Amino acid sequence: MTDKLINFFKPRGVALIGASSNPGKLSYGILKNMISYGYQGSVYPVNPGNQEILGLKCYPSISEVPDPVDLAVVILPAPAVPEVVEACGQRGLQAVNIISGGFREVGAEGYELEKRCLEIASRYQMRLIGPNCVGTMDLYSGLNTTFIRGVPDTGSIGFISQSGAVCGAVVDLVAGKGIGFSYFVSMGNEADVTETDLIEFLNKDENTRVIAAYVEAISDGPRFIRVASQVTRHKPIVILKAGHSDAGARAVSSHTGSLAGSIAAYDAAFRQSGVIVANTVAELFDISFALSVQPLPVGNRVAIVTNSGGPAALASDSLAANGLQLGDLSLDTKAKLREFLVPSAQVNNPVDMLGGATPEEYARALECVLKDPGIDTALVIQVPTSLVNPVESATKIGETAAKSEKPVIVCLMGDASIQEARNTLHRLKVPMYVYPEQAGRVYGAMLNYKRWLDTSPAGEMPGFSADRQMAQRQFDSVKAIKNIGEAHIRPLLQTYGIPLIPAELARSAEESVRHAEKLGYPVALKIVSPDILHKSDAGGIRLNLSTPQLVEQAYQEMMEKLAAAFPDARLEGVLVEPMAAKGHEVIVGMKRDPQFGPLMMFGLGGVYVELFTDVAFRVAPLNAQTALEMIFETKAGKLLKGVRGQKPADVEAVVDCILRLAQLALDFPEIAEVEVNPLLVFEQGKGATGLDARAILL
Amino acid sequence: MTDKLINFFKPRGVALIGASSNPGKLSYGILKNMISYGYQGSVYPVNPGNQEILGLKCYPSISEVPDPVDLAVVILPAPAVPEVVEACGQRGLQAVNIISGGFREVGAEGYELEKRCLEIASRYQMRLIGPNCVGTMDLYSGLNTTFIRGVPDTGSIGFISQSGAVCGAVVDLVAGKGIGFSYFVSMGNEADVTETDLIEFLNKDENTRVIAAYVEAISDGPRFIRVASQVTRHKPIVILKAGHSDAGARAVSSHTGSLAGSIAAYDAAFRQSGVIVANTVAELFDISFALSVQPLPVGNRVAIVTNSGGPAALASDSLAANGLQLGDLSLDTKAKLREFLVPSAQVNNPVDMLGGATPEEYARALECVLKDPGIDTALVIQVPTSLVNPVESATKIGETAAKSEKPVIVCLMGDASIQEARNTLHRLKVPMYVYPEQAGRVYGAMLNYKRWLDTSPAGEMPGFSADRQMAQRQFDSVKAIKNIGEAHIRPLLQTYGIPLIPAELARSAEESVRHAEKLGYPVALKIVSPDILHKSDAGGIRLNLSTPQLVEQAYQEMMEKLAAAFPDARLEGVLVEPMAAKGHEVIVGMKRDPQFGPLMMFGLGGVYVELFTDVAFRVAPLNAQTALEMIFETKAGKLLKGVRGQKPADVEAVVDCILRLAQLALDFPEIAEVEVNPLLVFEQGKGATGLDARAILL
Repeated sequence: MTDKLINFFKPRGVALIGASSNPGKLSYGILKNMISYGYQGSVYPVNPGNQEILGLKCYPSISEVPDPVDLAVVILPAPAVPEVVEACGQRGLQAVNIISGGFREVGAEGYELEKRCLEIASRYQMRLIGPNCVGTMDLYSGLNTTFIRGVPDTGSIGFISQSGAVCGAVVDLVAGKGIGFSYFVSMGNEADVTETDLIEFLNKDENTRVIAAYVEAISDGPRFIRVASQVTRHKPIVILKAGHSDAGARAVSSHTGSLAGSIAAYDAAFRQSGVIVANTVAELFDISFALSVQPLPVGNRVAIVTNSGGPAALASDSLAANGLQLGDLSLDTKAKLREFLVPSAQVNNPVDMLGGATPEEYARALECVLKDPGIDTALVIQVPTSLVNPVESATKIGETAAKSEKPVIVCLMGDASIQEARNTLHRLKVPMYVYPEQAGRVYGAMLNYKRWLDTSPAGEMPGFSADRQMAQRQFDSVKAIKNIGEAHIRPLLQTYGIPLIPAELARSAEESVRHAEKLGYPVALKIVSPDILHKSDAGGIRLNLSTPQLVEQAYQEMMEKLAAAFPDARLEGVLVEPMAAKGHEVIVGMKRDPQFGPLMMFGLGGVYVELFTDVAFRVAPLNAQTALEMIFETKAGKLLKGVRGQKPADVEAVVDCILRLAQLALDFPEIAEVEVNPLLVFEQGKGATGLDARAILL
Repeated sequence: MTDKLINFFKPRGVALIGASSNPGKLSYGILKNMISYGYQGSVYPVNPGNQEILGLKCYPSISEVPDPVDLAVVILPAPAVPEVVEACGQRGLQAVNIISGGFREVGAEGYELEKRCLEIASRYQMRLIGPNCVGTMDLYSGLNTTFIRGVPDTGSIGFISQSGAVCGAVVDLVAGKGIGFSYFVSMGNEADVTETDLIEFLNKDENTRVIAAYVEAISDGPRFIRVASQVTRHKPIVILKAGHSDAGARAVSSHTGSLAGSIAAYDAAFRQSGVIVANTVAELFDISFALSVQPLPVGNRVAIVTNSGGPAALASDSLAANGLQLGDLSLDTKAKLREFLVPSAQVNNPVDMLGGATPEEYARALECVLKDPGIDTALVIQVPTSLVNPVESATKIGETAAKSEKPVIVCLMGDASIQEARNTLHRLKVPMYVYPEQAGRVYGAMLNYKRWLDTSPAGEMPGFSADRQMAQRQFDSVKAIKNIGEAHIRPLLQTYGIPLIPAELARSAEESVRHAEKLGYPVALKIVSPDILHKSDAGGIRLNLSTPQLVEQAYQEMMEKLAAAFPDARLEGVLVEPMAAKGHEVIVGMKRDPQFGPLMMFGLGGVYVELFTDVAFRVAPLNAQTALEMIFETKAGKLLKGVRGQKPADVEAVVDCILRLAQLALDFPEIAEVEVNPLLVFEQGKGATGLDARAILL
């Protein structure tokens, strides 16, 4: 499917439809870029009003363009585009890149135009990039269909972006710094080719070692997870996701039902796919570049080699904040360092060679620490001083790094004086950063990725033998209710094997007592009413009733008070439930995400859920391993493991409950939300039991 | 005291002792810098081996240097320095800046040399900067005593640094970018002049609008807090503190007693002094520069004016993460924007003028949003495109910003193409950043500082009428014990008015019952033993004993079991205490910090303290306002306010307990740690009561 995408980057010939001879027009700039960066295929400007542009013969229409031509780049007013796409199809093209805007992003009319283009393209089995984008660059074939000024250096980062502006900015930021790219793709509206298609394509591309992406929205979440979890087993994917704040606000929403905002789904999806999340544009390329030129660290022990203490302290803070530590140098290493460093140098880690450190000292010290078996990775820091030639140091450091299989990154803390040294290092495939703080973030990301590779891929979700017919009947009987309370959702949950405390519906005080006798004292009474959602707040719960008299009395009082307080509410009766044994209160839930599907939630229950919003998320389908990761991401997970000498709780029972709830959510897409809250978790081997539950339908 | 510091920056004459005619020497570089940046005073090289250096007459010794001379800069081997300092004193100098290393930082011998220099200087009432530093720059007088290559632009950031390397790096990073400084001071070992002295000095300096500092350690914490809390009322202090990670590790230590690591003290001190904390070198100058050229925002409503959506989305995320929001533009503003922007432009906030936005459109749109009463501050984003002339835009934006009293910052997301535009903006006093993510951090810091200025200065700590003589007797009677348990620390705490649950010491089962009868059932028994610190873990606590039989039995069982389990422990008896009513469990404590003194702690009590490490810190002395701020920084504070319809708890009682504990800590410097844990807090008006307490002496 995505093999055809090669036509966007290495076509035998490319037509520019809407080419202009006016140097003030974007299309002129595109044509110029097409022929300026070494592209060896044929380039055909198409414009009925011109004979020749930039020395190239201009054709009146795509139908008259000679062979070979695989790709059309279209820059025409939106209303004219569908017709041109049709012509491209007739001409037998494989790929169309629509640069022009004026489509979905401007409203209904544009949306219709976009839909027509897509329909035509799929009729001809052509692939479409855009519309509303700034084109693509293949740094190997040299084909550049953008109007961006300049190109990045050639290397192995494949960059895809849902913002054309970010593409332009990034070129300006990285150009001339030796940060090498394989592809640059502006994806625009993604009418056809999506970020996931391009991830699949870049995965197969041998020039690409790292996939970097700027993402605003992922439309097919489940496919993204499927593809990304496979790709990240071969190459890293680093993503900067914009639009964190809206969803962030939703995530801190005070009632538990709305904890699972959409950003939680993105975070969960990225995490369970092994995607590296960058928090800033700078980080996106800091991390991607290091991954594209350096090996992965096998552990978290860093050695710092520096000519100054302050920046080394800042770097140490940053390393610590990202899960790395300063490794202990062996006695042997220290003795070797002592041999050639000045007496006042510090041979513990950080190795501080002081302001006068020479390029040779840098090289020898770096070699020493890289050979130390207690060190997994090195960070070399140099502050410019009048005693230092940064380029000489850079050369020595780079050459030494190349000889080691351990990763090395360098911090040259300056600007004016380090430009050339940066290029030297980058040419030698050693990433250089300006600030010591960047090092921690980069090594942290590399280490996390290494750990992802070290875990076995998550397997399939286990099947559960729910009686699907019975479940359907149970669902049908409640599907007219939008907010389904405990009494009505219980049968469906139980069919899926989700453990719930025994409960009986009573419609009178006498019936309550009968049930209590059967269930055993003490019991709880809980109102059953489709109109009372917050039972506890409304006074619809009575706990610890230990005699028939107390049960009878509680029933009558509750009914009278609720009838008075909520005259319009339908009071269907009460659930009679035995009081539960002691356990840890957690919450297990699902909220359906429009992009990603069932988003499973686990967290601390009770009053603390609101106070600490201690929750973690994963997208279903998921397996036990992923559910366990989710649980142990939270403080509640630590609580279940046992703190202060408590016995560990039955985490397996929680995993089982999460998986069963996930299966339910996958089987019934009409369920928008469902939660068991609290789920009471007992000691290991003693299971868990839900004390309350609810669901909301779409 | 600090008035004399002017001699370091604007001396009538300066001698360089140890001047060299060898261009490869640092001292040659210093002399060159001294005469290269417009310094108008006299410059005297001192070196017995030279007649003239760099065209200046060279003197054999400081005693022969003619008038006027106020400052000596010394760069000689450490052992030679004390004698020279003596000579400077005799010559009548006011100030000595010792550049040379080889002092305290190299060990005991160097420490002695440093001490001698300090003694000599103070005998002559000379002030001393250094040793082990890279000198100072006054960008107004032009005196530059460093060997750093280049100087920053002139402006109003006063920068002081405990790392010379950071000074050098920063000059390289900022030079030529229009980021203006008033002073650059490398403080070295701070033998005499400290960061706090320089903060006092810069506070009085009229060229300095912002004090920026790189700090590794503050030796006199209480003085720093006193000075900084006053200075920040006049000018902002922005500090980057290195060495966060060691203490960070201490802060996550699992037992509550060691929660108060030293970094907690720094954080607390900075917070209660109104100091702005920068997390990275880049942030230190991003924030300082904005504060030095722009007015403060009066609120958190930002308008974004941009030519591209992606970077605006990233900026919005960053603003949201830092407590700012996108303001709603008025209908009037939107109508005005609609008048001149292209039809497809977005006139909601962010105002997206699309890729073709002209300099005029930037100026008019910025003017519109700045005039909107619903907007407090503006962020202008421009991504370089082939259609944009960044310098023209920069000029228009800068001129428009200058006409408004609201702050404006600009993001030009590029590198190569925006260098000139940056200088244009900076000349017009509008800070420019490369990445949209920087904007949120800067505006967040500015807003927090504005809020600090809006709060009234914290007043004095209230006095408490503890019977000092009785307290001293109580203290004396336990001071032989290092770890003081509840039974022994109770009298001292009670003398300071700290509320504790009633308790009686019983040395037999019969006595226990007698006390229980008096206190009222049910009661708790708690072992009293200097050798059993963790009573609960050891089995030394029995709760809820409701009859004389149960009390008697519990006493005997406890004594037998403990005697068997801890054969060497001295078992002095038990405390008999009534069971407390229900309340919120919090912890109130103090840990003495070597730099800052009594570090007060407040947090969530019980099992959750370990799970969530939900604690906040302040340095004593503190007043009720500061104590309240500390409380409400925690989740426990929110719990006390009342969640889920609970009644608010007695926060005043907690404040009172914190202040009394602080007074105790100030009165008895021998107490290293003391805590009341748990402190049980009842409903508003019903007070609080400590259920357990302990102390550790130094």
